[in-house]
Amino acid sequence: MQQLVEELLKGNRRAAARLITLVENDDRRKFELLQAIYPHTGHAYVVGITGAPGAGKSSLVDRLLQVIRAEGLSIGVIAVDPTSPFSDGAILGDRIRMQDHALDREIFIRSMATRGSLGGLSRATKEAIQVLDAFGKDLVLVETVGVGQSEVDIVKTADTTIVVLTPAGGDSVQTLKAGIMEIADLFVVNKADLPGVDRTVTEINMMLDMKNDVPWRPAVIPTVSIRGEGIEKIWSSIKEHRHHLETSGRLAEARLRRVKRELTEQVEYLVKSRFWEEVKEKFFLGEIFEKIARREKDPYSSACELLDSTNFFERKS
Amino acid sequence: MQQLVEELLKGNRRAAARLITLVENDDRRKFELLQAIYPHTGHAYVVGITGAPGAGKSSLVDRLLQVIRAEGLSIGVIAVDPTSPFSDGAILGDRIRMQDHALDREIFIRSMATRGSLGGLSRATKEAIQVLDAFGKDLVLVETVGVGQSEVDIVKTADTTIVVLTPAGGDSVQTLKAGIMEIADLFVVNKADLPGVDRTVTEINMMLDMKNDVPWRPAVIPTVSIRGEGIEKIWSSIKEHRHHLETSGRLAEARLRRVKRELTEQVEYLVKSRFWEEVKEKFFLGEIFEKIARREKDPYSSACELLDSTNFFERKS
Repeated sequence: MQQLVEELLKGNRRAAARLITLVENDDRRKFELLQAIYPHTGHAYVVGITGAPGAGKSSLVDRLLQVIRAEGLSIGVIAVDPTSPFSDGAILGDRIRMQDHALDREIFIRSMATRGSLGGLSRATKEAIQVLDAFGKDLVLVETVGVGQSEVDIVKTADTTIVVLTPAGGDSVQTLKAGIMEIADLFVVNKADLPGVDRTVTEINMMLDMKNDVPWRPAVIPTVSIRGEGIEKIWSSIKEHRHHLETSGRLAEARLRRVKRELTEQVEYLVKSRFWEEVKEKFFLGEIFEKIARREKDPYSSACELLDSTNFFERKS
Repeated sequence: MQQLVEELLKGNRRAAARLITLVENDDRRKFELLQAIYPHTGHAYVVGITGAPGAGKSSLVDRLLQVIRAEGLSIGVIAVDPTSPFSDGAILGDRIRMQDHALDREIFIRSMATRGSLGGLSRATKEAIQVLDAFGKDLVLVETVGVGQSEVDIVKTADTTIVVLTPAGGDSVQTLKAGIMEIADLFVVNKADLPGVDRTVTEINMMLDMKNDVPWRPAVIPTVSIRGEGIEKIWSSIKEHRHHLETSGRLAEARLRRVKRELTEQVEYLVKSRFWEEVKEKFFLGEIFEKIARREKDPYSSACELLDSTNFFERKS
């Protein structure tokens, strides 16, 4: 492990790939890894890109990579697919396109798919970002298909979040409804060569107008990603947003919030697992479950009983 | 509280409404309530209905209520809106329609909106179902707008889950992609008077064909809810699914799983809150957060330190 981490810090791509696989598989040695790389993180700026399937996110990312690379920055890309393993295909095809960048040593691309829960996926994504951060990437782009909670979770890790929409009839407003409005630092209306683009841009701006006193007003940028139109503007807007976050102190605040969340999650994970470990030694839980199912007990008093019968907590009430 | 619960068990509608408000507000007395009503639950059959905004779920529920009431069953309806408080309107309008049933004493309708987190909403929904179950409803219909994780969470509480789609171009497949396939016990293709309905039905069936060896093959039912077409078929299919669950033992299994989840959540909630209560007495966490943010500490060893410095757990490794 230590050797792998050293290789990562030296910039070894295979080490990076192996360590991401390790977090993706939720390997036992994961915490050792995260602990070892933590002092080397905090450099990368994280950009999240989300939107409905078919909005053209991958070709957008593709073009954006060209623009950002032209400024000499190194980039990590994590393409997250939270859709069910039952469907597949689309994102794989997209990934093949992105392999155009495969020869560029400063670009590292990795796909991640749901293996277990959405929660597990967003955790693994967060940890993969840490790996790419320690790997020395200046920028980490996280691309995710928009399916509600997963994008919200992933966004919590991004410094700048881009929401990609298309002018398709009525679609924009519906997408916005699902709580997307609050997470966007930047709206991209892709496929701006399709009819209805002006209406979509206006609708988004109208919704943004309803929010007063916000420290940052998201730009709404029409693009045609397959022709590379509007991509430079996205990159400028990302940089403006970063500048805003840095000068206003909001970047530091957001990162402190993330530290709190990380420590809290970590502590609660340990508390819970150690607790169950002990309880399972003492009780045959199956019997308790059966009793509750038969309505002979209720889950609320049973929970208190379990707690009180361990030595972890003094009886308080 | 005890009086309110007694009134609930007697069938007092105002008591039901007040107790649901109590769980919705996450009132301190919530556990006392849940504990008191638990022995009176387990009777109601829970049906979840989900789908994209605009799929016509509310008029479908409206018609379904008529069909079910004709068989003399009493019904509770919980209409859940997990969309952001920033957008509103649609669901309120729908609720006004449903008030047509307000004079029917055997129908109880309640809307629930997101106040805090999605997690909070799905918890409150689950608890409201308990209240309506204890209230004596034969059937509880939970209607929710489809936005990913929230519908999945809510579905975990339903015995039968209905996914509503429309024939709108390409929409069906996209919706299915978001992990919907696995949660549906029954597909409804509403607005079947629109073009493309046959294609949508075929597409869903093709996706279902890819799944072999499943104990239950969901029906795919075209409906025109505003004209009441296909509604009887939905109700038959719900009854068939219930019969399947009951005779195969899967209903009992699912309910036992829910008991496990409920007890687990309850225990972990108590463990976590008691743990933090103690930790906050002993440590100034702000200082630890700052150190982690400055990379002087890492979240993983800090978490272990916090645990080890309490008396809750013996040092194990």
